Amino acid sequence: MILIGERINGAYKDIGRAVKNRNPEPIRDWVSRQVAQGADYLDVNVGTLAEDPVDAMKWLARTVREVTGCPLCFDSPNPDVIHAGLEIGGPGSIINSCPAERSRIEVLFPMARESGARIIGLTMNEQGIPRDADSRAALAMELVASADEFGVAADDLFIDPLLMPVGVAQEHTPEALKTIAAVRMLSSPPPRTVVGLSNVSQRTFDRSLINRTFMVMAMAVGLDAAILDVCDESLVDAIATARILLNQEIYADSYIKLFRSRKQPDQRSS
Amino acid sequence: MILIGERINGAYKDIGRAVKNRNPEPIRDWVSRQVAQGADYLDVNVGTLAEDPVDAMKWLARTVREVTGCPLCFDSPNPDVIHAGLEIGGPGSIINSCPAERSRIEVLFPMARESGARIIGLTMNEQGIPRDADSRAALAMELVASADEFGVAADDLFIDPLLMPVGVAQEHTPEALKTIAAVRMLSSPPPRTVVGLSNVSQRTFDRSLINRTFMVMAMAVGLDAAILDVCDESLVDAIATARILLNQEIYADSYIKLFRSRKQPDQRSS
Repeated sequence: MILIGERINGAYKDIGRAVKNRNPEPIRDWVSRQVAQGADYLDVNVGTLAEDPVDAMKWLARTVREVTGCPLCFDSPNPDVIHAGLEIGGPGSIINSCPAERSRIEVLFPMARESGARIIGLTMNEQGIPRDADSRAALAMELVASADEFGVAADDLFIDPLLMPVGVAQEHTPEALKTIAAVRMLSSPPPRTVVGLSNVSQRTFDRSLINRTFMVMAMAVGLDAAILDVCDESLVDAIATARILLNQEIYADSYIKLFRSRKQPDQRSS
Repeated sequence: MILIGERINGAYKDIGRAVKNRNPEPIRDWVSRQVAQGADYLDVNVGTLAEDPVDAMKWLARTVREVTGCPLCFDSPNPDVIHAGLEIGGPGSIINSCPAERSRIEVLFPMARESGARIIGLTMNEQGIPRDADSRAALAMELVASADEFGVAADDLFIDPLLMPVGVAQEHTPEALKTIAAVRMLSSPPPRTVVGLSNVSQRTFDRSLINRTFMVMAMAVGLDAAILDVCDESLVDAIATARILLNQEIYADSYIKLFRSRKQPDQRSS
Protein backbone atom coordinates (compact mmCIF):
# COMPACT_ATOMS: atom_id res chain seq x y z
CA MET A 1 0.00 0.00 0.00
CA ILE A 2 1.50 3.29 -1.14
CA LEU A 3 0.67 6.18 1.21
CA ILE A 4 0.90 9.65 -0.36
CA GLY A 5 0.75 12.46 2.20
CA GLU A 6 -1.85 15.05 1.19
CA ARG A 7 -0.85 18.00 3.34
CA ILE A 8 1.58 20.08 1.21
CA ASN A 9 -1.32 21.60 -0.70
CA GLY A 10 -2.14 25.29 -1.13
CA ALA A 11 -5.80 24.47 -0.61
CA TYR A 12 -4.96 24.28 3.11
CA LYS A 13 -4.87 27.84 4.41
CA ASP A 14 -1.53 27.54 6.22
CA ILE A 15 0.21 26.12 3.15
CA GLY A 16 -1.50 28.55 0.75
CA ARG A 17 -0.29 31.47 2.86
CA ALA A 18 3.21 29.99 3.17
CA VAL A 19 3.47 29.60 -0.61
CA LYS A 20 2.25 33.14 -1.21
CA ASN A 21 4.74 34.57 1.28
CA ARG A 22 7.53 32.10 0.45
CA ASN A 23 7.66 31.21 4.13
CA PRO A 24 9.33 27.79 4.43
CA GLU A 25 8.51 27.06 8.08
CA PRO A 26 4.97 25.62 7.74
CA ILE A 27 6.15 23.55 4.74
CA ARG A 28 9.10 22.08 6.64
CA ASP A 29 6.88 21.30 9.58
CA TRP A 30 4.30 19.37 7.53
CA VAL A 31 6.96 17.56 5.52
CA SER A 32 8.64 16.32 8.70
CA ARG A 33 5.37 15.27 10.29
CA GLN A 34 4.21 13.32 7.25
CA VAL A 35 7.54 11.61 6.70
CA ALA A 36 7.67 10.64 10.39
CA GLN A 37 4.15 9.18 10.07
CA GLY A 38 5.25 6.93 7.23
CA ALA A 39 4.37 8.73 3.97
CA ASP A 40 5.87 6.89 0.98
CA TYR A 41 5.35 9.98 -1.21
CA LEU A 42 4.39 13.57 -0.52
CA ASP A 43 1.81 15.26 -2.72
CA VAL A 44 2.95 18.81 -3.63
CA ASN A 45 0.35 21.29 -4.86
CA VAL A 46 0.79 25.07 -4.91
CA GLY A 47 -2.94 25.71 -4.82
CA THR A 48 -4.83 28.25 -6.89
CA LEU A 49 -3.68 31.48 -5.23
CA ALA A 50 -0.07 31.63 -6.42
CA GLU A 51 0.45 34.45 -8.94
CA ASP A 52 3.13 32.60 -10.88
CA PRO A 53 2.38 28.93 -10.25
CA VAL A 54 5.48 27.64 -12.08
CA ASP A 55 7.74 29.77 -9.92
CA ALA A 56 5.72 28.83 -6.84
CA MET A 57 6.17 25.11 -7.62
CA LYS A 58 9.92 25.55 -8.06
CA TRP A 59 10.14 27.21 -4.66
CA LEU A 60 7.78 24.71 -3.00
CA ALA A 61 9.47 21.59 -4.43
CA ARG A 62 12.91 22.92 -3.45
CA THR A 63 11.68 23.74 0.05
CA VAL A 64 10.31 20.21 0.44
CA ARG A 65 13.44 18.61 -1.03
CA GLU A 66 15.68 20.45 1.47
CA VAL A 67 13.93 18.54 4.27
CA THR A 68 13.49 15.06 2.80
CA GLY A 69 14.55 12.66 0.07
CA CYS A 70 11.01 11.20 0.13
CA PRO A 71 9.70 10.96 -3.47
CA LEU A 72 7.19 13.60 -4.51
CA CYS A 73 3.86 13.64 -6.33
CA PHE A 74 3.40 16.84 -8.32
CA ASP A 75 -0.21 17.88 -8.34
CA SER A 76 -1.49 20.51 -10.78
CA PRO A 77 -3.91 20.89 -13.70
CA ASN A 78 -1.09 22.81 -15.45
CA PRO A 79 1.55 20.65 -17.22
CA ASP A 80 4.15 23.44 -16.95
CA VAL A 81 3.75 23.46 -13.17
CA ILE A 82 4.17 19.68 -13.05
CA HIS A 83 7.23 19.92 -15.28
CA ALA A 84 8.79 22.49 -12.96
CA GLY A 85 8.28 20.07 -10.07
CA LEU A 86 9.72 17.08 -11.94
CA GLU A 87 12.94 18.97 -12.61
CA ILE A 88 13.47 19.17 -8.87
CA GLY A 89 11.85 15.85 -7.84
CA GLY A 90 13.77 13.76 -10.38
CA PRO A 91 13.06 10.19 -11.50
CA GLY A 92 10.58 8.23 -9.37
CA SER A 93 8.26 11.21 -8.91
CA ILE A 94 4.52 10.95 -9.68
CA ILE A 95 2.61 13.18 -12.11
CA ASN A 96 -0.80 14.06 -10.62
CA SER A 97 -2.75 13.95 -12.89
CA CYS A 98 -3.91 13.37 -16.48
CA PRO A 99 -7.55 13.03 -17.59
CA ALA A 100 -8.48 10.68 -20.47
CA GLU A 101 -8.23 13.58 -22.95
CA ARG A 102 -6.01 13.26 -25.99
CA SER A 103 -4.56 16.77 -25.78
CA ARG A 104 -3.43 16.22 -22.17
CA ILE A 105 -2.27 12.65 -22.75
CA GLU A 106 0.02 13.78 -25.62
CA VAL A 107 1.78 16.19 -23.26
CA LEU A 108 1.83 14.34 -19.94
CA PHE A 109 2.57 10.73 -20.91
CA PRO A 110 5.73 11.69 -22.88
CA MET A 111 6.70 13.88 -19.92
CA ALA A 112 6.34 10.83 -17.61
CA ARG A 113 8.44 8.72 -19.95
CA GLU A 114 11.17 11.33 -20.33
CA SER A 115 11.47 12.12 -16.64
CA GLY A 116 11.14 8.54 -15.36
CA ALA A 117 7.96 9.48 -13.50
CA ARG A 118 4.86 7.51 -12.67
CA ILE A 119 1.54 9.06 -13.66
CA ILE A 120 -1.99 9.22 -12.24
CA GLY A 121 -4.72 8.95 -14.89
CA LEU A 122 -8.22 10.18 -14.08
CA THR A 123 -11.37 8.39 -15.24
CA MET A 124 -12.82 11.59 -16.67
CA ASN A 125 -12.69 13.38 -20.02
CA GLU A 126 -14.12 16.48 -21.75
CA GLN A 127 -17.63 15.20 -20.98
CA GLY A 128 -16.95 15.01 -17.24
CA ILE A 129 -16.95 12.12 -14.77
CA PRO A 130 -19.19 9.24 -15.82
CA ARG A 131 -21.46 8.02 -13.09
CA ASP A 132 -21.17 4.30 -13.68
CA ALA A 133 -18.17 2.02 -13.21
CA ASP A 134 -18.29 0.52 -16.72
CA SER A 135 -17.85 3.94 -18.34
CA ARG A 136 -15.04 4.80 -15.92
CA ALA A 137 -13.32 1.50 -16.72
CA ALA A 138 -13.60 2.35 -20.44
CA LEU A 139 -11.76 5.64 -19.79
CA ALA A 140 -9.19 3.73 -17.72
CA MET A 141 -8.69 1.44 -20.73
CA GLU A 142 -7.93 4.50 -22.89
CA LEU A 143 -5.31 5.53 -20.36
CA VAL A 144 -3.81 2.02 -20.35
CA ALA A 145 -3.59 2.14 -24.16
CA SER A 146 -1.94 5.57 -23.92
CA ALA A 147 0.64 4.22 -21.47
CA ASP A 148 1.49 1.49 -23.95
CA GLU A 149 1.60 3.98 -26.84
CA PHE A 150 3.96 6.37 -25.06
CA GLY A 151 6.15 3.73 -23.42
CA VAL A 152 5.00 4.10 -19.82
CA ALA A 153 5.03 0.73 -17.96
CA ALA A 154 1.56 -0.49 -16.92
CA ASP A 155 2.49 -0.49 -13.25
CA ASP A 156 3.77 3.08 -13.48
CA LEU A 157 0.20 4.12 -14.37
CA PHE A 158 -2.17 4.74 -11.43
CA ILE A 159 -5.86 4.96 -12.26
CA ASP A 160 -7.87 7.30 -10.04
CA PRO A 161 -11.62 6.48 -10.15
CA LEU A 162 -12.38 9.96 -8.73
CA LEU A 163 -14.02 10.03 -5.33
CA MET A 164 -16.88 12.49 -4.89
CA PRO A 165 -18.13 13.68 -1.47
CA VAL A 166 -20.54 11.03 -0.21
CA GLY A 167 -22.88 13.71 1.13
CA VAL A 168 -23.17 15.34 -2.31
CA ALA A 169 -22.93 12.54 -4.90
CA GLN A 170 -23.56 9.41 -2.91
CA GLU A 171 -24.41 7.26 -5.93
CA HIS A 172 -20.84 7.74 -7.18
CA THR A 173 -19.26 6.07 -4.14
CA PRO A 174 -20.07 2.39 -4.85
CA GLU A 175 -19.25 3.05 -8.53
CA ALA A 176 -15.75 4.13 -7.50
CA LEU A 177 -15.35 0.83 -5.62
CA LYS A 178 -16.55 -1.12 -8.66
CA THR A 179 -14.11 0.83 -10.86
CA ILE A 180 -11.19 -0.17 -8.62
CA ALA A 181 -12.20 -3.84 -8.93
CA ALA A 182 -12.69 -3.51 -12.72
CA VAL A 183 -9.33 -1.78 -13.35
CA ARG A 184 -7.49 -4.84 -11.99
CA MET A 185 -8.93 -6.86 -14.90
CA LEU A 186 -8.02 -4.40 -17.68
CA SER A 187 -4.59 -5.66 -18.64
CA SER A 188 -1.82 -8.00 -17.53
CA PRO A 189 -0.02 -6.61 -15.66
CA PRO A 190 -2.85 -4.25 -14.70
CA PRO A 191 -2.38 -0.57 -13.93
CA ARG A 192 -2.43 0.33 -10.26
CA THR A 193 -5.23 2.24 -8.54
CA VAL A 194 -5.15 5.34 -6.36
CA VAL A 195 -7.76 7.52 -4.67
CA GLY A 196 -7.76 11.02 -3.21
CA LEU A 197 -9.27 9.66 0.00
CA SER A 198 -10.33 12.83 1.81
CA ASN A 199 -12.63 13.82 -1.07
CA VAL A 200 -15.15 11.16 0.00
CA SER A 201 -15.74 12.79 3.38
CA GLN A 202 -15.80 16.46 2.36
CA ARG A 203 -18.46 18.41 4.25
CA THR A 204 -19.40 15.42 6.43
CA PHE A 205 -19.35 15.46 10.22
CA ASP A 206 -17.15 12.47 11.03
CA ARG A 207 -14.50 12.69 8.35
CA SER A 208 -12.00 10.30 9.92
CA LEU A 209 -14.57 7.50 10.33
CA ILE A 210 -15.77 7.89 6.74
CA ASN A 211 -12.21 8.07 5.37
CA ARG A 212 -10.94 4.96 7.13
CA THR A 213 -14.10 2.97 6.37
CA PHE A 214 -13.89 3.76 2.65
CA MET A 215 -10.13 3.09 2.68
CA VAL A 216 -10.39 -0.50 3.91
CA MET A 217 -13.40 -1.18 1.66
CA ALA A 218 -11.30 -0.01 -1.30
CA MET A 219 -8.39 -2.17 -0.12
CA ALA A 220 -10.75 -5.17 -0.09
CA VAL A 221 -11.41 -4.66 -3.81
CA GLY A 222 -7.74 -4.09 -4.66
CA LEU A 223 -6.70 -0.47 -4.05
CA ASP A 224 -2.91 0.03 -4.35
CA ALA A 225 -2.35 3.63 -3.23
CA ALA A 226 -4.04 6.65 -1.67
CA ILE A 227 -3.43 10.34 -1.22
CA LEU A 228 -4.49 10.76 2.38
CA ASP A 229 -4.01 12.27 5.81
CA VAL A 230 -1.09 10.12 6.90
CA CYS A 231 -1.19 11.87 10.31
CA ASP A 232 -4.63 10.35 11.05
CA GLU A 233 -3.52 7.54 13.35
CA SER A 234 -6.82 5.67 13.31
CA LEU A 235 -6.64 5.63 9.51
CA VAL A 236 -3.12 4.17 9.55
CA ASP A 237 -4.21 1.59 12.16
CA ALA A 238 -7.08 0.56 9.87
CA ILE A 239 -4.74 0.26 6.88
CA ALA A 240 -2.30 -1.89 8.88
CA THR A 241 -5.22 -4.11 9.93
CA ALA A 242 -6.56 -4.46 6.39
CA ARG A 243 -3.10 -5.50 5.20
CA ILE A 244 -3.08 -8.27 7.81
CA LEU A 245 -6.55 -9.42 6.79
CA LEU A 246 -5.49 -9.47 3.11
CA ASN A 247 -2.43 -11.55 4.11
CA GLN A 248 -0.20 -8.79 2.71
CA GLU A 249 1.76 -8.56 5.98
CA ILE A 250 2.38 -11.48 8.31
CA TYR A 251 0.30 -11.35 11.49
CA ALA A 252 2.02 -10.61 14.78
CA ASP A 253 0.31 -9.42 17.96
CA SER A 254 2.24 -6.15 17.54
CA TYR A 255 1.37 -5.78 13.84
CA ILE A 256 0.35 -2.10 14.07
CA LYS A 257 3.62 -1.14 15.73
CA LEU A 258 5.55 -3.18 13.16
CA PHE A 259 3.67 -1.54 10.27
CA ARG A 260 4.55 1.90 11.60
CA SER A 261 8.19 1.01 12.24
CA ARG A 262 8.61 -0.39 8.73
CA LYS A 263 7.28 2.92 7.41
CA GLN A 264 9.94 4.96 9.20
CA PRO A 265 12.30 6.81 6.83
CA ASP A 266 15.45 4.91 7.87
CA GLN A 267 13.70 1.54 7.43
CA ARG A 268 12.25 2.20 3.98
CA SER A 269 13.75 0.63 0.90
CA SER A 270 12.47 3.40 -1.39
CA MET B 1 -27.34 -5.83 6.52
CA ILE B 2 -28.69 -8.43 8.92
CA LEU B 3 -27.13 -8.26 12.38
CA ILE B 4 -27.32 -11.49 14.41
CA GLY B 5 -26.37 -11.03 18.07
CA GLU B 6 -23.76 -13.61 19.12
CA ARG B 7 -24.00 -13.41 22.89
CA ILE B 8 -26.58 -16.08 23.90
CA ASN B 9 -24.00 -18.83 23.58
CA GLY B 10 -22.94 -21.35 26.19
CA ALA B 11 -19.34 -20.86 25.08
CA TYR B 12 -19.44 -17.63 27.11
CA LYS B 13 -18.90 -18.58 30.74
CA ASP B 14 -21.82 -16.57 32.13
CA ILE B 15 -24.26 -18.09 29.64
CA GLY B 16 -22.82 -21.61 29.99
CA ARG B 17 -23.31 -21.42 33.75
CA ALA B 18 -26.79 -19.93 33.41
CA VAL B 19 -27.85 -22.78 31.09
CA LYS B 20 -26.40 -25.41 33.41
CA ASN B 21 -28.18 -23.94 36.45
CA ARG B 22 -31.33 -22.91 34.54
CA ASN B 23 -30.83 -19.36 35.80
CA PRO B 24 -32.75 -17.01 33.50
CA GLU B 25 -31.29 -13.70 34.72
CA PRO B 26 -28.04 -13.54 32.66
CA ILE B 27 -30.00 -14.68 29.59
CA ARG B 28 -32.65 -11.99 29.99
CA ASP B 29 -29.96 -9.37 30.52
CA TRP B 30 -28.06 -10.21 27.31
CA VAL B 31 -31.26 -10.55 25.28
CA SER B 32 -32.38 -7.07 26.32
CA ARG B 33 -28.99 -5.51 25.67
CA GLN B 34 -28.63 -7.02 22.20
CA VAL B 35 -32.18 -6.13 21.17
CA ALA B 36 -31.67 -2.56 22.41
CA GLN B 37 -28.46 -2.36 20.36
CA GLY B 38 -30.30 -3.29 17.17
CA ALA B 39 -29.93 -7.06 16.71
CA ASP B 40 -32.16 -8.30 13.87
CA TYR B 41 -31.79 -11.91 15.09
CA LEU B 42 -30.34 -13.50 18.21
CA ASP B 43 -28.10 -16.53 17.89
CA VAL B 44 -29.03 -19.15 20.51
CA ASN B 45 -26.49 -21.84 21.37
CA VAL B 46 -26.57 -24.00 24.52
CA GLY B 47 -22.85 -24.69 24.36
CA THR B 48 -21.14 -28.02 24.96
CA LEU B 49 -21.58 -28.38 28.72
CA ALA B 50 -25.33 -29.04 28.89
CA GLU B 51 -26.05 -32.64 29.95
CA ASP B 52 -29.25 -32.89 27.89
CA PRO B 53 -28.76 -30.35 25.08
CA VAL B 54 -32.28 -30.82 23.67
CA ASP B 55 -33.84 -30.03 27.01
CA ALA B 56 -31.36 -27.18 27.51
CA MET B 57 -32.32 -25.65 24.15
CA LYS B 58 -36.03 -25.86 25.00
CA TRP B 59 -35.42 -24.00 28.23
CA LEU B 60 -33.02 -21.48 26.66
CA ALA B 61 -35.27 -20.70 23.67
CA ARG B 62 -38.29 -20.28 25.94
CA THR B 63 -36.31 -18.02 28.28
CA VAL B 64 -35.25 -15.82 25.34
CA ARG B 65 -38.76 -15.81 23.86
CA GLU B 66 -40.25 -14.57 27.14
CA VAL B 67 -38.21 -11.37 26.75
CA THR B 68 -38.42 -10.65 23.03
CA GLY B 69 -40.22 -11.39 19.78
CA CYS B 70 -36.92 -10.90 17.92
CA PRO B 71 -36.39 -13.83 15.52
CA LEU B 72 -33.87 -16.46 16.61
CA CYS B 73 -31.00 -18.31 15.02
CA PHE B 74 -30.60 -21.81 16.45
CA ASP B 75 -26.97 -22.79 16.58
CA SER B 76 -25.96 -26.41 17.16
CA PRO B 77 -24.16 -29.27 15.41
CA ASN B 78 -27.03 -31.49 16.57
CA PRO B 79 -30.18 -31.42 14.37
CA ASP B 80 -32.36 -32.53 17.31
CA VAL B 81 -31.26 -29.48 19.30
CA ILE B 82 -32.01 -27.20 16.36
CA HIS B 83 -35.42 -28.83 15.94
CA ALA B 84 -36.21 -28.22 19.61
CA GLY B 85 -35.38 -24.55 19.10
CA LEU B 86 -37.46 -24.22 15.93
CA GLU B 87 -40.55 -25.51 17.75
CA ILE B 88 -40.30 -22.49 20.03
CA GLY B 89 -38.87 -19.95 17.57
CA GLY B 90 -41.44 -20.64 14.86
CA PRO B 91 -41.32 -19.58 11.19
CA GLY B 92 -38.70 -17.00 10.28
CA SER B 93 -36.03 -18.57 12.47
CA ILE B 94 -32.58 -19.45 11.12
CA ILE B 95 -30.96 -22.90 11.24
CA ASN B 96 -27.25 -22.55 12.11
CA SER B 97 -25.81 -24.55 10.39
CA CYS B 98 -25.46 -27.27 7.74
CA PRO B 99 -22.17 -28.35 6.14
CA ALA B 100 -22.06 -29.48 2.51
CA GLU B 101 -22.50 -33.11 3.56
CA ARG B 102 -25.30 -35.16 2.10
CA SER B 103 -26.30 -36.86 5.37
CA ARG B 104 -26.75 -33.47 7.08
CA ILE B 105 -28.37 -31.79 4.09
CA GLU B 106 -31.04 -34.53 3.90
CA VAL B 107 -32.06 -33.80 7.50
CA LEU B 108 -31.64 -30.02 7.80
CA PHE B 109 -32.91 -28.69 4.47
CA PRO B 110 -36.28 -30.51 4.79
CA MET B 111 -36.41 -29.21 8.38
CA ALA B 112 -35.92 -25.65 7.07
CA ARG B 113 -38.64 -26.14 4.48
CA GLU B 114 -41.13 -27.63 6.96
CA SER B 115 -40.59 -25.02 9.65
CA GLY B 116 -40.40 -22.00 7.36
CA ALA B 117 -36.83 -21.36 8.51
CA ARG B 118 -33.83 -19.90 6.74
CA ILE B 119 -30.64 -21.95 6.82
CA ILE B 120 -26.91 -21.24 7.03
CA GLY B 121 -24.81 -23.55 4.84
CA LEU B 122 -21.10 -23.96 5.59
CA THR B 123 -18.44 -24.24 2.89
CA MET B 124 -16.97 -27.37 4.45
CA ASN B 125 -17.58 -31.10 4.14
CA GLU B 126 -16.22 -34.43 5.44
CA GLN B 127 -12.76 -33.45 4.15
CA GLY B 128 -12.71 -30.21 6.14
CA ILE B 129 -12.53 -26.55 5.10
CA PRO B 130 -10.83 -26.01 1.73
CA ARG B 131 -8.21 -23.33 1.78
CA ASP B 132 -8.99 -21.64 -1.52
CA ALA B 133 -12.04 -19.67 -2.53
CA ASP B 134 -12.79 -21.69 -5.69
CA SER B 135 -13.19 -24.90 -3.70
CA ARG B 136 -15.35 -23.12 -1.13
CA ALA B 137 -17.52 -21.73 -3.92
CA ALA B 138 -17.90 -25.26 -5.30
CA LEU B 139 -19.24 -26.40 -1.92
CA ALA B 140 -21.52 -23.36 -1.84
CA MET B 141 -22.86 -24.45 -5.23
CA GLU B 142 -23.70 -27.89 -3.77
CA LEU B 143 -25.66 -26.11 -1.03
CA VAL B 144 -27.46 -23.94 -3.61
CA ALA B 145 -28.42 -27.11 -5.54
CA SER B 146 -29.65 -28.68 -2.28
CA ALA B 147 -31.80 -25.63 -1.54
CA ASP B 148 -33.40 -26.02 -4.96
CA GLU B 149 -33.84 -29.80 -4.47
CA PHE B 150 -35.54 -29.43 -1.09
CA GLY B 151 -37.63 -26.37 -1.92
CA VAL B 152 -35.75 -23.74 0.10
CA ALA B 153 -35.73 -20.32 -1.64
CA ALA B 154 -32.27 -19.15 -2.73
CA ASP B 155 -32.45 -16.06 -0.56
CA ASP B 156 -33.39 -18.16 2.47
CA LEU B 157 -29.98 -19.85 2.14
CA PHE B 158 -27.02 -18.07 3.77
CA ILE B 159 -23.55 -19.26 2.77
CA ASP B 160 -20.91 -19.00 5.51
CA PRO B 161 -17.36 -19.01 4.05
CA LEU B 162 -16.00 -19.92 7.52
CA LEU B 163 -13.72 -17.35 9.08
CA MET B 164 -10.59 -18.67 10.79
CA PRO B 165 -8.57 -16.70 13.36
CA VAL B 166 -6.24 -14.41 11.41
CA GLY B 167 -3.44 -15.07 13.88
CA VAL B 168 -3.65 -18.84 13.27
CA ALA B 169 -4.68 -19.35 9.63
CA GLN B 170 -3.99 -15.99 8.02
CA GLU B 171 -3.98 -17.33 4.46
CA HIS B 172 -7.66 -18.25 4.89
CA THR B 173 -8.79 -14.66 5.48
CA PRO B 174 -8.51 -13.24 1.94
CA GLU B 175 -9.96 -16.53 0.63
CA ALA B 176 -13.06 -15.92 2.76
CA LEU B 177 -13.42 -12.47 1.16
CA LYS B 178 -13.05 -13.99 -2.32
CA THR B 179 -15.65 -16.63 -1.44
CA ILE B 180 -18.17 -13.93 -0.47
CA ALA B 181 -17.62 -12.21 -3.84
CA ALA B 182 -17.86 -15.53 -5.73
CA VAL B 183 -21.07 -16.66 -4.00
CA ARG B 184 -22.93 -13.63 -5.39
CA MET B 185 -22.31 -15.01 -8.89
CA LEU B 186 -23.49 -18.57 -8.23
CA SER B 187 -27.15 -18.26 -9.12
CA SER B 188 -29.84 -15.75 -9.88
CA PRO B 189 -31.08 -14.79 -7.38
CA PRO B 190 -27.92 -15.65 -5.46
CA PRO B 191 -27.86 -17.08 -1.95
CA ARG B 192 -26.98 -14.63 0.78
CA THR B 193 -23.71 -14.63 2.70
CA VAL B 194 -23.05 -14.60 6.43
CA VAL B 195 -19.95 -14.73 8.63
CA GLY B 196 -19.31 -15.51 12.29
CA LEU B 197 -17.33 -12.29 12.62
CA SER B 198 -15.62 -12.71 15.98
CA ASN B 199 -13.83 -15.87 14.78
CA VAL B 200 -11.45 -13.75 12.68
CA SER B 201 -10.04 -11.97 15.75
CA GLN B 202 -9.78 -14.90 18.18
CA ARG B 203 -6.63 -14.74 20.29
CA THR B 204 -5.60 -11.37 18.83
CA PHE B 205 -4.87 -8.28 20.93
CA ASP B 206 -7.17 -5.68 19.36
CA ARG B 207 -10.26 -7.73 18.60
CA SER B 208 -12.64 -4.83 18.00
CA LEU B 209 -10.36 -3.16 15.42
CA ILE B 210 -9.84 -6.43 13.55
CA ASN B 211 -13.56 -7.27 13.67
CA ARG B 212 -14.77 -3.93 12.35
CA THR B 213 -12.06 -3.76 9.67
CA PHE B 214 -12.92 -7.22 8.34
CA MET B 215 -16.63 -6.42 8.56
CA VAL B 216 -16.52 -3.41 6.23
CA MET B 217 -14.10 -5.16 3.87
CA ALA B 218 -16.59 -8.02 3.62
CA MET B 219 -19.43 -5.54 3.07
CA ALA B 220 -17.43 -4.07 0.17
CA VAL B 221 -17.47 -7.45 -1.56
CA GLY B 222 -21.16 -8.09 -0.84
CA LEU B 223 -21.67 -9.55 2.65
CA ASP B 224 -25.37 -9.70 3.64
CA ALA B 225 -25.33 -10.75 7.31
CA ALA B 226 -23.06 -11.38 10.28
CA ILE B 227 -23.20 -13.04 13.67
CA LEU B 228 -21.40 -10.46 15.77
CA ASP B 229 -21.05 -8.46 18.95
CA VAL B 230 -23.91 -6.05 18.37
CA CYS B 231 -22.95 -4.26 21.62
CA ASP B 232 -19.61 -3.15 20.11
CA GLU B 233 -20.51 0.44 19.28
CA SER B 234 -17.50 1.13 17.08
CA LEU B 235 -18.43 -1.93 15.03
CA VAL B 236 -22.00 -0.71 14.55
CA ASP B 237 -20.70 2.78 13.63
CA ALA B 238 -18.46 1.21 10.99
CA ILE B 239 -21.37 -0.83 9.59
CA ALA B 240 -23.57 2.27 9.39
CA THR B 241 -20.74 4.09 7.57
CA ALA B 242 -20.17 1.26 5.10
CA ARG B 243 -23.90 1.24 4.29
CA ILE B 244 -23.69 4.96 3.47
CA LEU B 245 -20.62 4.40 1.27
CA LEU B 246 -22.38 1.53 -0.55
CA ASN B 247 -25.38 3.84 -1.10
CA GLN B 248 -27.57 1.38 0.83
CA GLU B 249 -28.79 4.12 3.18
CA ILE B 250 -29.23 7.73 2.20
CA TYR B 251 -26.58 10.06 3.60
CA ALA B 252 -27.52 12.48 6.34
CA ASP B 253 -25.11 14.21 8.72
CA SER B 254 -26.70 12.21 11.52
CA TYR B 255 -26.57 8.90 9.63
CA ILE B 256 -25.13 6.89 12.56
CA LYS B 257 -27.89 8.02 14.90
CA LEU B 258 -30.48 7.29 12.21
CA PHE B 259 -29.06 3.80 11.60
CA ARG B 260 -29.30 3.02 15.31
CA SER B 261 -32.79 4.43 15.67
CA ARG B 262 -34.05 2.42 12.70
CA LYS B 263 -32.68 -0.69 14.40
CA GLN B 264 -34.71 -0.08 17.58
CA PRO B 265 -37.27 -2.82 18.28
CA ASP B 266 -40.35 -0.58 17.88
CA GLN B 267 -39.05 0.79 14.55
CA ARG B 268 -38.23 -2.53 12.94
CA SER B 269 -40.48 -4.03 10.31
CA SER B 270 -39.42 -7.63 11.04
